[in-house]
Amino acid sequence: MLVVQKFGGTSVKGLERIDNVVKRIIQTKKDLSCDLIVIVSAMGGVTNELIENAKYFSQTPNPRDYDMLLSAGERITSSLVSIALNAKGFKAIALSGRGAGILTDDFHTKARIKAIDKDKIRSFLDDGNIVVVAGFQGINSKGDVTTLGRGGSDLSAVAIAGVMEADFCEIYTDVDGVFTTDPKIEPNAKKIDKISYDEMLELSSLGAKVLQNRSVELAKKLNLEIVTKNSFNLNSGTLITSEVEKEIISGIALDENQVKFDINSDKKNIDFNIFSLLASSHINVDMIFEINENDKTSLSFTISKSDLVVAKDILGDISYKIDEDIIKLSIIGIGMRSIVISKALEVLSKNGIKIVSISTSEIKISMLLRKKDGKTAINLLHKIYNLDK
Amino acid sequence: MLVVQKFGGTSVKGLERIDNVVKRIIQTKKDLSCDLIVIVSAMGGVTNELIENAKYFSQTPNPRDYDMLLSAGERITSSLVSIALNAKGFKAIALSGRGAGILTDDFHTKARIKAIDKDKIRSFLDDGNIVVVAGFQGINSKGDVTTLGRGGSDLSAVAIAGVMEADFCEIYTDVDGVFTTDPKIEPNAKKIDKISYDEMLELSSLGAKVLQNRSVELAKKLNLEIVTKNSFNLNSGTLITSEVEKEIISGIALDENQVKFDINSDKKNIDFNIFSLLASSHINVDMIFEINENDKTSLSFTISKSDLVVAKDILGDISYKIDEDIIKLSIIGIGMRSIVISKALEVLSKNGIKIVSISTSEIKISMLLRKKDGKTAINLLHKIYNLDK
Repeated sequence: MLVVQKFGGTSVKGLERIDNVVKRIIQTKKDLSCDLIVIVSAMGGVTNELIENAKYFSQTPNPRDYDMLLSAGERITSSLVSIALNAKGFKAIALSGRGAGILTDDFHTKARIKAIDKDKIRSFLDDGNIVVVAGFQGINSKGDVTTLGRGGSDLSAVAIAGVMEADFCEIYTDVDGVFTTDPKIEPNAKKIDKISYDEMLELSSLGAKVLQNRSVELAKKLNLEIVTKNSFNLNSGTLITSEVEKEIISGIALDENQVKFDINSDKKNIDFNIFSLLASSHINVDMIFEINENDKTSLSFTISKSDLVVAKDILGDISYKIDEDIIKLSIIGIGMRSIVISKALEVLSKNGIKIVSISTSEIKISMLLRKKDGKTAINLLHKIYNLDK
Repeated sequence: MLVVQKFGGTSVKGLERIDNVVKRIIQTKKDLSCDLIVIVSAMGGVTNELIENAKYFSQTPNPRDYDMLLSAGERITSSLVSIALNAKGFKAIALSGRGAGILTDDFHTKARIKAIDKDKIRSFLDDGNIVVVAGFQGINSKGDVTTLGRGGSDLSAVAIAGVMEADFCEIYTDVDGVFTTDPKIEPNAKKIDKISYDEMLELSSLGAKVLQNRSVELAKKLNLEIVTKNSFNLNSGTLITSEVEKEIISGIALDENQVKFDINSDKKNIDFNIFSLLASSHINVDMIFEINENDKTSLSFTISKSDLVVAKDILGDISYKIDEDIIKLSIIGIGMRSIVISKALEVLSKNGIKIVSISTSEIKISMLLRKKDGKTAINLLHKIYNLDK
């Protein structure tokens, strides 16, 4: 049996918490007598401090050296965890991204994993080691350190679990699992015990904060079961898997991290050109609204706020307006019928909440609202869909 | 022309100081239009913090992972320095010990450099880069990170300067250079402008704190000129070279970091056995006093205090006494004649200072004294040898 466990920044913030994580690793080893691979993030705050240090010298640090800098935090945590395991009599070895043979493409700060050296990791396991891998990092074909972008340590964990054919992968954070909506906004929010990859994908892209999209996508592709758990208690967490008996609505998510571009143009292929430019910088476009009339294109799309500076730079002299007063609210579930949509539109309208735009898919209704309306909308919808029952 | 510059922990402690170092690097590049390799230590305090973190989990952390941990500090500094250089329009690249192709033996935490990839570093220089190397570290033949022990970054600098055939190597610290004795003990101590490798060797092994023995030895072997300078001012520093016009006495050094073992035994080869055991753990023996009479051996020797725990462990059931109430005072110069020795003995005796043991070489007189007498002895000798003139 092979288990992969990943511990995020808050779970390893400070030496006492690392000690707690080490005890949990040992308990798993004892309970399951399994082979064990542990992926760790940087200690909470460390990566931000490294970023601040770099920004002291440059707002746009050269990516190669920036990645070498950013990779330090996870190296430190993995070394400490392995030192602690060895000190308690459990054979362990700390590996950097390079040490684990994680090969990526050349796109610094947002690299994609291309291959993992399965035999290398296997041989460390066969030697009786608990293998402790620094998350968030790999090397490119030149041998330079690369990092995997936001949520990169989750991605390391899922990719390694997939390649090594782990039985399951546990992702430890500081919350109990996936909730029907943000408990800070809606006190009646409930933890979901089981959720499908597709629903989780929608939730995660919308800011559910437990697991990044890229990791869920990869898990789905690999058909790898993921359990998200709280490292600070022994609760059962949320199982993310392929098959789940559905209720109609599984959750409502709020994403405050989007910004909208509005473009009116009579140039041909303006949409294609813009999305090519954004793709070349690995900027994901989220919602897209496009109307073509009389050779004129009205195009709106949203991207993550963190990509705003780069996007502005790339779009150059293309004429656009930016709308920052938006939040995105999404209702996730299986079988979204008109009745679900009309219910939402009715309750929001009655309460004077304006919908800027709306788009639907098989399992999701997403709406852009004005910022001030986000919390009220969540509370209203959580109630009419009986999510607190 | 190729210049190597090394900046120690206090010179890069904090972002403002790193910025200051970067300005100095750029000034050198502008003034000399030379190829430039920069070796950096961890930011002051960082390595100690990493050590403290490891010690939280184990007093004897497993050496492989401990080295991976300790190497992080220099990686961070080298990345930041390269980011800053690039931001100021100077092409630069940060290299870890691995990146610079520094191959060492397998002795973790005290590894020795076996080879450096000259062609690799040369190609980065030929591409127009200022090459910024993380000091203190390399990799062994298995590809695991190793560290070089105390003063390891100096060693990285000297070894790289040697292999790359640098014109000279500058070592930046927080003092102006090598002094005739410790200015904190003797206010009339004077900076030495030029000193030979051999004299510097004696000074450095005795605690002159500017440059470790191993680095001076290597520089001597390579016939590499070293300039030690203060990174906080523009003073000229001390040139360490092969040929120096001599005054009789060049300096007096105090080493408070030694501890003495006293062993009486009737076993054959006890001396050889003990020194083999110590050598196998890379523990250097400094002063040795041995008397063989009637098949009995009286053996005393001193080692560094930092090696005491390991030495005790290694010597096991051999019977010995430990004397910690000693300091070592050394008078360094060329042509040590009886007159020099007798002068010292006279003035110390007159002032009631007891000499525990004494040994002499071509260029050095070393004495073990009781701790309380160290400062007085320095002041007396500095005066009678006219070092303040």
